[in-house]
Amino acid sequence: MRRQAPKNAFYAQSGGVTAVINASACGLIETARKYPKRIAKVYAGRHGIIGALTEDMIDTSKESAAAIRALRHTPGGAFGSARYKLAGLDQNRTQYERLIEVFRAHDIGYFFYNGGNDSMDTAHKVSEIGAQLGYPITCIGVPKTVDNDLAVTDCCPGFGSAAKYIAVSTREAALDVLSMARTSTKVFVLEVMGRHAGWLAAAGGLAGEKSGDAPHIILFPEIVFDKAKFLAKVKRSVEGSGYCVVVVSEGVRDADGKFLAEAGTKDAFGHSQLGGVGPIVAQMTQEAFGYKFHWAVADYLQRAGRHLASKVDVEQAYAVGQAAVQLALRGKNAVMPVIVRKSSKPYRWTIGEAPLAAVANKEKQVPRSFITADGFGITAACRRYLLPLINGEDYPPYVRGMPAYATLKGAPVVKRLATQFPL
Amino acid sequence: MRRQAPKNAFYAQSGGVTAVINASACGLIETARKYPKRIAKVYAGRHGIIGALTEDMIDTSKESAAAIRALRHTPGGAFGSARYKLAGLDQNRTQYERLIEVFRAHDIGYFFYNGGNDSMDTAHKVSEIGAQLGYPITCIGVPKTVDNDLAVTDCCPGFGSAAKYIAVSTREAALDVLSMARTSTKVFVLEVMGRHAGWLAAAGGLAGEKSGDAPHIILFPEIVFDKAKFLAKVKRSVEGSGYCVVVVSEGVRDADGKFLAEAGTKDAFGHSQLGGVGPIVAQMTQEAFGYKFHWAVADYLQRAGRHLASKVDVEQAYAVGQAAVQLALRGKNAVMPVIVRKSSKPYRWTIGEAPLAAVANKEKQVPRSFITADGFGITAACRRYLLPLINGEDYPPYVRGMPAYATLKGAPVVKRLATQFPL
Repeated sequence: MRRQAPKNAFYAQSGGVTAVINASACGLIETARKYPKRIAKVYAGRHGIIGALTEDMIDTSKESAAAIRALRHTPGGAFGSARYKLAGLDQNRTQYERLIEVFRAHDIGYFFYNGGNDSMDTAHKVSEIGAQLGYPITCIGVPKTVDNDLAVTDCCPGFGSAAKYIAVSTREAALDVLSMARTSTKVFVLEVMGRHAGWLAAAGGLAGEKSGDAPHIILFPEIVFDKAKFLAKVKRSVEGSGYCVVVVSEGVRDADGKFLAEAGTKDAFGHSQLGGVGPIVAQMTQEAFGYKFHWAVADYLQRAGRHLASKVDVEQAYAVGQAAVQLALRGKNAVMPVIVRKSSKPYRWTIGEAPLAAVANKEKQVPRSFITADGFGITAACRRYLLPLINGEDYPPYVRGMPAYATLKGAPVVKRLATQFPL
Repeated sequence: MRRQAPKNAFYAQSGGVTAVINASACGLIETARKYPKRIAKVYAGRHGIIGALTEDMIDTSKESAAAIRALRHTPGGAFGSARYKLAGLDQNRTQYERLIEVFRAHDIGYFFYNGGNDSMDTAHKVSEIGAQLGYPITCIGVPKTVDNDLAVTDCCPGFGSAAKYIAVSTREAALDVLSMARTSTKVFVLEVMGRHAGWLAAAGGLAGEKSGDAPHIILFPEIVFDKAKFLAKVKRSVEGSGYCVVVVSEGVRDADGKFLAEAGTKDAFGHSQLGGVGPIVAQMTQEAFGYKFHWAVADYLQRAGRHLASKVDVEQAYAVGQAAVQLALRGKNAVMPVIVRKSSKPYRWTIGEAPLAAVANKEKQVPRSFITADGFGITAACRRYLLPLINGEDYPPYVRGMPAYATLKGAPVVKRLATQFPL
């Protein structure tokens, strides 16, 4: 009888959060609640995997259906996330053993890990060590990252909304600059995320539709920064169109492979330059041509901007959460649901699956064929790929002018272990 | 007969543009079109007042009703704005004479100037010199500024939408930081506009509703920056809530009245620090306590973010454009329509009027009673004032995931003068 009883599930959010990671949590929890004979309760790690290591878990069964539903439109990580990479199995086996100890103590039979490529590696290792320690556990990855750099999946939940934010913001700021350019600002620079992959920078390209439209220049981490070529293009743009809008990835590097953002500028006290790459490239244009410039750094605004989410992205984020449960219930292990593109025009997609081993620790950059020959723009192929991902709006509800985001009780699961675990 | 013929109108946008300045243009042009026997055509200055000086005007009668309607949901300045302050009448009388020359050549009987306090001063002077030169012209100001610093009017069109953008962005970014704070970012700083008045910084305060909510600190230009007090408050916030969100106005100054953004930091080449005040205060917290930080600079995104406009703001922007025409047709001169607050709860407002002389060159700061005793937050009175201004959403239409903003033909008015005017 005991053996037949449904197991609990553990869910954790990992790494940088997004506007829709909670939509995945929503899809996962709502789906799990439909199968009470298979999954008893979903426990969420408080601050991700740290919550498992320290036995600090949130009992999501204490949350109302309305609160779980509201996760669908709430940005950030509602249970807390963590930048905490487990070491390799050889380096710190005790971490993995501790996870299994906690899972065993709480009768957890499913481990759902919502994160990027590092997290898929962790989930993969947990599935291996569970088997080794005689505590088999079903490990399913749930993809998430604004960077869109996960392997196998056509796109990553979280990216579409950040991409939409950047594309719309670029279009809006460009209208502003164009208004002002005659007597004031001629160069506007928007700095976006993406340290190793330029997908978010590429999304800025969607702001323009025809030749001469902003953005006039995109700086990708995939393309070595060439200052002379960049400045020449800025000049052509200002002289031709009256202004120049630049979208720059934080990950842009020079020929030595060094991030431009760390290009050796120091403040008066000898500290490294505080600013990012946005102000640096903006300043270059003033030094070269005297152009008045403005710059913005979107930072967390771009990945938390749930008010401007892509409907497709929200649906996909929900779908991978839902599919994670379905895969687990079908007896799959060490897999991750992926987005499969069936066609671009019209856009059709479905959910597939990939072994965690095929996703773990890989990184997908923007292919050269998506970047124009001069290295400063996106091609038609890139546009075809990106456009469907920002399609549709999915507005949160507002109360008195402000979005009404979910607030959870966050009731803790009663601890069963006497031992502490030092992080 | 000639004397009875309707005169043309001249409309110009001035200074930094907003998400809703075109909504004022829309209200003005749509209303003028209803009175063809009184107003013949509305000519818009290409790049504001410069378009009058250089006789470079756009014939808005060539724009379709649909295009004019679309201005209501389009950010930026659709006709081009200018940072171009006319000198005093004594210093450069020829500028004013040229304006009258162009108005006379094009049979312009109405001058509508859409801008801030500088522009109201200009409009006032034009009304005076027109009378002096025997070419009486009806001069009506149309209020606009994200800074909310105009006198007499209860609030300024443009402010409500930027305020909503900042309040929502602060709430969203705060959810992100809270997710990450356990293992990563503990301090997040959002830099907003407002060089002399802290209204936009104050709007960030709407992100929080109860004690302990973000933002934990607001830095106002109205309050002298006290580094020790600031750092102590950051520490209390991180130790108490786990994180600290700061909204900082670009206009914050130290005890010597110096902008913090110009506080003497230099790069490796001896140039002034590129960054704004956001990275500077963020860095302070790391130096003092080792906190990991992130910062964002909203810059033009906050004043161009039409995708997140306040419905109240859009309505008021339209209404002042409409009222400008109605005032002119009622024979008023040298006045500006103002927003009059009838009550805060429920919010009721109407349009009044103020003499341009009462508005020109004045500046309204955030009153001390709107700022908490410690100088780091907003009071209940401030919240009562601000909340109605961000109320309601007014989304632009989207096509394939992107907002469909107006595109105008911008057909030029045929020049009638042989003379050029050097700017």
